[in-house]
Amino acid sequence: MRTFRSLISVDEALRTIDEHIRPVDGAETVGLSEALGRVLSEDIVAGFDVPRRDRSAMDGYAVKAGDIARASTSKPARLRLVGSVAIGQVPTVRVSAGECASVSTGCFMPKGADAVVMHENTDLNDSTVTFYKPVYSGENVSAKGSDVKQGSTPLHKGDVLTPAKVGVLASLGKAEVNVFEKPQIAIVPTGAEIKKVGSSIEEAEIYDINSHTLAAVVEENGGIPVVSDVIPDERDRLLGAIEANRKCDLTVIAGGSSVGERDLMYDVLSKRGEVLFHGVQIRPGKPTICAVIDGKILLGMPGHPTSCLSNAYIFLMPMTRKLARLPERRLTTVKAKLSRRVVSTLGRKVFMTVRIRDGEAEPVFKESSAITSMADADGYIVIPENVDTMEKGDEVEVLLFY
Amino acid sequence: MRTFRSLISVDEALRTIDEHIRPVDGAETVGLSEALGRVLSEDIVAGFDVPRRDRSAMDGYAVKAGDIARASTSKPARLRLVGSVAIGQVPTVRVSAGECASVSTGCFMPKGADAVVMHENTDLNDSTVTFYKPVYSGENVSAKGSDVKQGSTPLHKGDVLTPAKVGVLASLGKAEVNVFEKPQIAIVPTGAEIKKVGSSIEEAEIYDINSHTLAAVVEENGGIPVVSDVIPDERDRLLGAIEANRKCDLTVIAGGSSVGERDLMYDVLSKRGEVLFHGVQIRPGKPTICAVIDGKILLGMPGHPTSCLSNAYIFLMPMTRKLARLPERRLTTVKAKLSRRVVSTLGRKVFMTVRIRDGEAEPVFKESSAITSMADADGYIVIPENVDTMEKGDEVEVLLFY
Repeated sequence: MRTFRSLISVDEALRTIDEHIRPVDGAETVGLSEALGRVLSEDIVAGFDVPRRDRSAMDGYAVKAGDIARASTSKPARLRLVGSVAIGQVPTVRVSAGECASVSTGCFMPKGADAVVMHENTDLNDSTVTFYKPVYSGENVSAKGSDVKQGSTPLHKGDVLTPAKVGVLASLGKAEVNVFEKPQIAIVPTGAEIKKVGSSIEEAEIYDINSHTLAAVVEENGGIPVVSDVIPDERDRLLGAIEANRKCDLTVIAGGSSVGERDLMYDVLSKRGEVLFHGVQIRPGKPTICAVIDGKILLGMPGHPTSCLSNAYIFLMPMTRKLARLPERRLTTVKAKLSRRVVSTLGRKVFMTVRIRDGEAEPVFKESSAITSMADADGYIVIPENVDTMEKGDEVEVLLFY
Repeated sequence: MRTFRSLISVDEALRTIDEHIRPVDGAETVGLSEALGRVLSEDIVAGFDVPRRDRSAMDGYAVKAGDIARASTSKPARLRLVGSVAIGQVPTVRVSAGECASVSTGCFMPKGADAVVMHENTDLNDSTVTFYKPVYSGENVSAKGSDVKQGSTPLHKGDVLTPAKVGVLASLGKAEVNVFEKPQIAIVPTGAEIKKVGSSIEEAEIYDINSHTLAAVVEENGGIPVVSDVIPDERDRLLGAIEANRKCDLTVIAGGSSVGERDLMYDVLSKRGEVLFHGVQIRPGKPTICAVIDGKILLGMPGHPTSCLSNAYIFLMPMTRKLARLPERRLTTVKAKLSRRVVSTLGRKVFMTVRIRDGEAEPVFKESSAITSMADADGYIVIPENVDTMEKGDEVEVLLFY
């Protein structure tokens, strides 16, 4: 009979994994409308100034600030209106001493003017504009290059493209951008009794749940799930599936990771590569195995749907994000009070799913084979290894699934 | 000269908008691999029990619990091994008094047995298995229907499909599922000087930023952006763009929402429909207009890229999510100390973008025309209407963009 030799702590497992994950290196070109959430694989250098010349930031009059330096309500200054600047066109009008020109928001400043006064603070009579207070040189002017300077690097390799960063690319006229490829994550469901959704099944067979939940977690975290057919628990078939997915950045195998008769992962992986750990001090999810084959990492997940999915949150999510070069994901947390006493397992970190009702965290875990242990939950609490019991009313931090 | 009549508070604006948003009603059928993040448009009723019959939750021996009720280390119980159950098959073996059968995790329980004892707690000699402690009836058995009961409703109309809920659909063999359509959000960039990214521009023209940033916010929040060509500031063209997008669930127009000469939105909207508000007590983003036309809401955003995008976070994000029937999005927050004094604007809520450096929140706002005011930021802080100045070192809550 096989057994787990010694269990590794969750933190140690995460550290071990982290040492063996190499972020994707390949890049691809995508259109700007596909760029959101992707990671830049190049520095973006501005080919021109934004704005290209000084622009008015207001609707008003472009003036020489010096001309109205002593303007006040009791002694207003008066300037002659000599023309206006059309939006989208290089100004032909020029402002000399004693003159002003009409400008609108975003238009280039006419030569000679260095400030803009809002319409609201002026009066116009025939061709004379009256000003009641001074402006400083540069007031209400967006200076050439003040948003992005020509030759500067407003975006850097490794930046995640948020809406605002997509906006910077647009301001520079970039219709396409080079980004890192999304990591390809192979997902291999295993088990003689498991059948693909959509096929017809016998009474004692069950539908494949794990490849769908794992694919969803991969997708949510910037990876591309590459889901294979269901593989029976046979050494050759498992090895075949591993080899077939060697081009992927990570392979995740669901099922067969424990120590029973049908659990072949340890044998297969220890022969083909190096097992980094087998058995983690976590509940559910203890029978988790991690190996390196030809320099690439492979994760063997327990087949029980809730063990598999809770481990996906604990291990697969950070792995996928690191491969994808995305920052750590912080699940949203809320504080709540436990609705009832829970008894934990000393020496195991417990991932306990809860539903939030009226500010109370209500445990909904049934058993690790039940997917509703996860699906009925709003999130989970983590009970540390050294905690045995938590009492009704204890404050807990719930990590939300959405 | 036009002016804002009276400004509305942000909270009032949000309430007003909320009253006029009707979540999408149309539904569509998607494959399970496209279901993540979508919203169920139907209750899911289980067509069969999961599991279909009692199953073993362990590798071990199926027994009648009564047979080993008095087993102990000093007085172990011995049962005759009468066979084993193959995974994925309906058991042919039957357990009678004094007998046990070998089972593996997930296989159906043989008739007659009501509990499973883990291998680890037994010894096998020839065809006799020795048991050292009792089990209760039902121990290590996943009861028929304990995950999902036939005829029950494990998922409900309106549920957002998380990875775990996708797993429930899989457990029921659903290859397809009915979900609400994503709302279509028309985005209309306006301005004579604005040109599409990818086209060639004259020196005094600028690239369209807003339709890209707005589309990104719509996409991040479950909507489908329907981006139109850039429309010049002309009444007929604006009206034409509004009519052309009447089939969309929401129309957002970027630019022309203020009170200058080129700001035609108020005129166009007040003639065609009912203006709900014009001018919001927020900075940047004051010149925002909201109207109802034929019962559908329309949002006019300021053209300055940072005003437009910050308002997208404040207004367009909750609007899109409500249309899409998604729950409110809580941006992740972190606490930080202000790196320097900031002077706010009394009577306006200020959306101040900040970068986080060494635990300090460093304001990065330049001006509302500069997209880098947003792109250089990690997030933003909200300074309430009644706060004039915040001091260096004051603790602030930063809402993160990622």
